[in-house]
Amino acid sequence: MRITLAVDSETPIYQQIRDQIVTAIATGELTAETPLPSTRQLGADLAVNFHTVNKAYDLLRHEGFIRVNRKSGAVIRRDRTTPPDPGVADAWQERLAIMLAEAVAHGLDRDEVLARTAQTLEAFTAAERTGP
Amino acid sequence: MRITLAVDSETPIYQQIRDQIVTAIATGELTAETPLPSTRQLGADLAVNFHTVNKAYDLLRHEGFIRVNRKSGAVIRRDRTTPPDPGVADAWQERLAIMLAEAVAHGLDRDEVLARTAQTLEAFTAAERTGP
Repeated sequence: MRITLAVDSETPIYQQIRDQIVTAIATGELTAETPLPSTRQLGADLAVNFHTVNKAYDLLRHEGFIRVNRKSGAVIRRDRTTPPDPGVADAWQERLAIMLAEAVAHGLDRDEVLARTAQTLEAFTAAERTGP
Repeated sequence: MRITLAVDSETPIYQQIRDQIVTAIATGELTAETPLPSTRQLGADLAVNFHTVNKAYDLLRHEGFIRVNRKSGAVIRRDRTTPPDPGVADAWQERLAIMLAEAVAHGLDRDEVLARTAQTLEAFTAAERTGP
């Protein structure tokens, strides 16, 4: 997978790395048991400090997307065909409710929000059909 | 409006205060130009340090939901009938795409995600119909 960093973004670098790995799992590009590069390797590839990569991996591990083993390194723990961990759906839906509240409070059009949601989900499905 | 804090939550207190004010704007309970309590007042009411309330108000101001004036204090800047600020829709949709990627990567059912989105948006609309 290719990770592209936007250095002028408001989103911290570790978050960008994390977001792109999550997106690659969602599109099916990364599947369960796929090894990730070591933090030093990915840090060198992206020209960022390996502590930054470490922070991204820590977050992914905390969220249940990867597991980290001192010997074998970081490995994708789950893909989109794995049934959700207990509690994940409820926690996610609580965060979704806040995000939707933000959209409505910002005056965004609700029909457009719903259409955009459907479109984005459809894009992941399309990626699935054509395969990784 | 009533703010209820969950002290055992993983969500920081300032974030809970911010989330509940955003939700109150989304449901139409808080409308443009409504004054918010002073940080000291709300801190006392919630039994939290006023710096925590200050952090919530700072975030809300940064996000464009309130304005803060040294004389008149914090005031709701916009409600859901105010057209979105420029750039807000794009930034929000980028964050939505990441959140949806998380859901798919976690193995959540996509039809359920879409249904839940529609339901949550509908709840805000229902709040609008019955009024604040």
